[in-house]
Amino acid sequence: MLNLNVMLQKDFDELMKMEVQNYADEKVKAGTWTKEESLQKSKEAFQQLLPDGLQTTHHFLLSLSHPNTNEVVGYFWYHFDESHPQKEAFIYNFLIFEPYRGQGFGRRALESLEKYVKQQGVKKLSLHVFAHNKRAIHLYQQAMYDITDINMSKYIG
Amino acid sequence: MLNLNVMLQKDFDELMKMEVQNYADEKVKAGTWTKEESLQKSKEAFQQLLPDGLQTTHHFLLSLSHPNTNEVVGYFWYHFDESHPQKEAFIYNFLIFEPYRGQGFGRRALESLEKYVKQQGVKKLSLHVFAHNKRAIHLYQQAMYDITDINMSKYIG
Repeated sequence: MLNLNVMLQKDFDELMKMEVQNYADEKVKAGTWTKEESLQKSKEAFQQLLPDGLQTTHHFLLSLSHPNTNEVVGYFWYHFDESHPQKEAFIYNFLIFEPYRGQGFGRRALESLEKYVKQQGVKKLSLHVFAHNKRAIHLYQQAMYDITDINMSKYIG
Repeated sequence: MLNLNVMLQKDFDELMKMEVQNYADEKVKAGTWTKEESLQKSKEAFQQLLPDGLQTTHHFLLSLSHPNTNEVVGYFWYHFDESHPQKEAFIYNFLIFEPYRGQGFGRRALESLEKYVKQQGVKKLSLHVFAHNKRAIHLYQQAMYDITDINMSKYIG
């Protein structure tokens, strides 16, 4: 198992810089935003999602660390509102940092998360993945997640 | 091919009664709403989506009819905003009415829709399906839609 701890403020600040940039890049790549406006719009999106940063109610950001070395190997970001009828938590992001990939941490991380959120009263974990992200889909499927919703599209131009 | 025509007001009113009830029932079944509040909340949801009913900007409701008999066999409801960067239309609902199912109308309807929306400048059609709706998924896969997004979940209770 990996250890899950509430993220430190400095780690959060660094993470947000990276997430804001990544999200901006994705939106530019998808043609939704122009390069010029992307960084600003991305900052606004995250500001709306986490208005109180780390302290935002119902949002949980946890650092994943190796039990022996205490190295931070990745993190989880999920949303959970205890008043949710099905006690469902939604995983916003889950990352194993690059140097630690390919070592099975992903699977152990998911197991650790399940144990952690159970204590919070979570009964169901949900997430979204892009269909092309085969690595992530494989990981979740191996961890016995079921596909619940599918978005499909067709180019007819 | 099937004929696609702008829906008549009386057909829209009848359809909305049915859609509002269905949506309410689904939400009760999913445990999201109580039975008592479901009908009112469902009405509010549709009111928010179609504030001007049939005339709501960017929403298109078309009746599908058989070219020979003129019988209305189903309908499409999609959203299309010409200012969308990828000229993407989103199918809100697509229904072949019960008496007409199992006769291949679904396939022909999708073909007719593609032809119709192309004229509007639509370049991409998107939709959401529940993973358990194998009949719909099969239909869209046969019509060459690709899976773009997947939602997954796991019960850990």
